[in-house]
Amino acid sequence: MVGAVRDASPRWSERQLADWAEPQLARVEDALSRWVGIDAPVLLGEAMRYAVLDGGKRLRPLLVLAASEAVAPLAPARTAIGDAALRAACAVELIHAYSLVHDDLPCMDNDVLRRGKPTVHVKFGEADALLAGDALQALAFELLVPDEADIPAAVQARLVRLLTRAAGSQGMAGGQAIDLASVGRRLSESELREMHRLKTGALLQGSVEMGAACAGELPAVVLAGLRDYGAAIGLAFQVVDDILDVVADSETLGKTAGKDAAADKPTYVSLLGLEGARASAQQLLAQALAALERSALSDTAALRALAHMVVDRDR
Amino acid sequence: MVGAVRDASPRWSERQLADWAEPQLARVEDALSRWVGIDAPVLLGEAMRYAVLDGGKRLRPLLVLAASEAVAPLAPARTAIGDAALRAACAVELIHAYSLVHDDLPCMDNDVLRRGKPTVHVKFGEADALLAGDALQALAFELLVPDEADIPAAVQARLVRLLTRAAGSQGMAGGQAIDLASVGRRLSESELREMHRLKTGALLQGSVEMGAACAGELPAVVLAGLRDYGAAIGLAFQVVDDILDVVADSETLGKTAGKDAAADKPTYVSLLGLEGARASAQQLLAQALAALERSALSDTAALRALAHMVVDRDR
Repeated sequence: MVGAVRDASPRWSERQLADWAEPQLARVEDALSRWVGIDAPVLLGEAMRYAVLDGGKRLRPLLVLAASEAVAPLAPARTAIGDAALRAACAVELIHAYSLVHDDLPCMDNDVLRRGKPTVHVKFGEADALLAGDALQALAFELLVPDEADIPAAVQARLVRLLTRAAGSQGMAGGQAIDLASVGRRLSESELREMHRLKTGALLQGSVEMGAACAGELPAVVLAGLRDYGAAIGLAFQVVDDILDVVADSETLGKTAGKDAAADKPTYVSLLGLEGARASAQQLLAQALAALERSALSDTAALRALAHMVVDRDR
Repeated sequence: MVGAVRDASPRWSERQLADWAEPQLARVEDALSRWVGIDAPVLLGEAMRYAVLDGGKRLRPLLVLAASEAVAPLAPARTAIGDAALRAACAVELIHAYSLVHDDLPCMDNDVLRRGKPTVHVKFGEADALLAGDALQALAFELLVPDEADIPAAVQARLVRLLTRAAGSQGMAGGQAIDLASVGRRLSESELREMHRLKTGALLQGSVEMGAACAGELPAVVLAGLRDYGAAIGLAFQVVDDILDVVADSETLGKTAGKDAAADKPTYVSLLGLEGARASAQQLLAQALAALERSALSDTAALRALAHMVVDRDR
C-alpha cells in the first residue's frame, strides 16, 4: 500500500536535506546568474544582480523544486518538468527579491541592512532601486514564457497565472498594503492571519503550486493537499519570523532585529505571547505534514524536511 | 489588386477616427473599471483605480485594438481575437499607468500633477503609490492569462512574452534607467534615440505587436511591417512629447510643462532645435506609413489615422 510506504519513510536529517538542497541551489544560483540583469543598461543590471545574487535562503525556489519532484511521477511527459521548475524557482525568487528592494525603500520600512549588506537603495540610490524592483518583477514573468523552450504553452500560462495571483493585489502586494494600514492599530488574530496569508503566505503557497503546475494537469486531491501544505507553511514562516524578530540579534538575522516592536507593528508575539506563538508554529507544522499525507503523493521527504526547516530555523 | 485598393483608401478625417475610437474606448474603460482594484484590500484598490481610470489618451490600447483588427482577416478562428485584444489593450494601459505612478514619485521626477489631477503619491502617500504601481504591473500580466477564457494558451504565453520584454530591463524600465543616468549629460542623437526606443518606444511597439499576436501565427512580412510601424510611431511619440514640453502650457498638457529643460534633461528639441525636431517627427510618420504599406495588410486605416494622431496631437 502506497500509504504505508509513505508513512514508513523516515524524517530526513539536516544532512539529508542539505544533500538534496545543495545541487538544487547550485542550479538556481547558476540560472539566476545567467538570467538576471544581463544586457540591462547602465546601473540597472548591476542593481538587479546585487538584489538577487549571493543572498537569501532560497526557500521559495526549494519549495518549487521539491513540489515539482513530488509530482513528477504523475506527469504525462517528464522531460520538460525540470526546465519549467527551474524557471519557476527563479521566478518566485525574483518576485521575493523585488519585494524586498521596494520594502526597504525609505517610504516603506526605510531599512539599510539586508542579508548583512547595505540595501539596494543605500548602494545604488532610491531611483535605481525602484527601477530594479520594477524590472525584476517583469523578468520574473518573462522567465516563465521562454520562446524556444520545450515547455507546453498551457504550463507557461498556468505558471504566469499562479505567480500573478501570488504577487499582486490579492497576494503579496495586498498584504503589504494591509501591513501599512495596520501600523499602530490593534489587529485581531484573524486580521493578523489575513494580512500574513497575503503578505508572505501567498508567495510561499504559490511556490508550491507552481512546482506542481510544472507537471501539467494533476488530480484534485494532489492539488488540494499541496495547496493546504503551502498555506500552512506560509503562515508558519511568518509566525517564526515574528518570534525571531524578538529573540534573535541583527547579526544572526542579517537584517535589523526588533524593528516590528520599534515600528509598533502587530505581530504574533505581541498578540499571542512568545510561548503562544511557538505553539502556533508547531500546530501549523502539524497541519502542513497532515496536508502532505492527504495529497497521496509517494515521495514527499523534501517537502516535509522543508516544513521542519521553516519552523526550526534560527534566521 | 490588393495594393491598389489599399492605396486608394483615403486618409480618415478626425471625425472618422473618433467614430472608430469611441466604442473601442468605451469597451476599454468598462473593462478597466471591472478589472482594476476590485477586491484589493484597504486603500490599495482605490489607489490602483485612481491611477488608471478616467484619464489619459489610451493611445496604447487603441494601437492594440487597431492592430488586432488589421490582422483579424488572417486569423484561423476569429472568435477569440476580440477577448484577447481587449485584455491586451487593458494590460498595456496598466503597464503605462504603473510606470507613471512610479515615475512621479519623489525619488524619480517628483511630480505633483498628472492628467490635471494630483499624482497618486500626493493623494495616497508614497508607500501606497509604490504598492499600487507594483500591483498594477502584476495585474497587467494576470489579465493576459485568464483561466476560463477562450484564448489559446499559446496566444496567452506570447502576449505575456511581448509585454515582459516591452516593460522590463530591455524595454521601458531600461529606458528609464538610461534617462536617470543621462540628466546633466550631453547625449548624441543616437544615444537619445536608444533611450527613447526603450523608455517610450518599446511599449508602443509592444502594443502593436500584441494586437497582432491576438491572431496567432502570422506571415513574417506582416509582423515585420507592424513592428517597423510600431518602432517609428514609438519614436515619433517621444519627439512630439519633447516638442510639446517646450511649446505647450501645463494646462493644455495636463502635466507640468517645461520640466525637461528645468531638469536639464537632453531632448530632441535641445539636440535638433524646434524645427529639426518637427522635421524628424514628419519623417518618422512617413516611415510608419511606409511600413504599413510593406505589411501588405488590406485594412490599415485605423493604424494610419493613429500614426497621424501621434504626430499632430497638441497634448
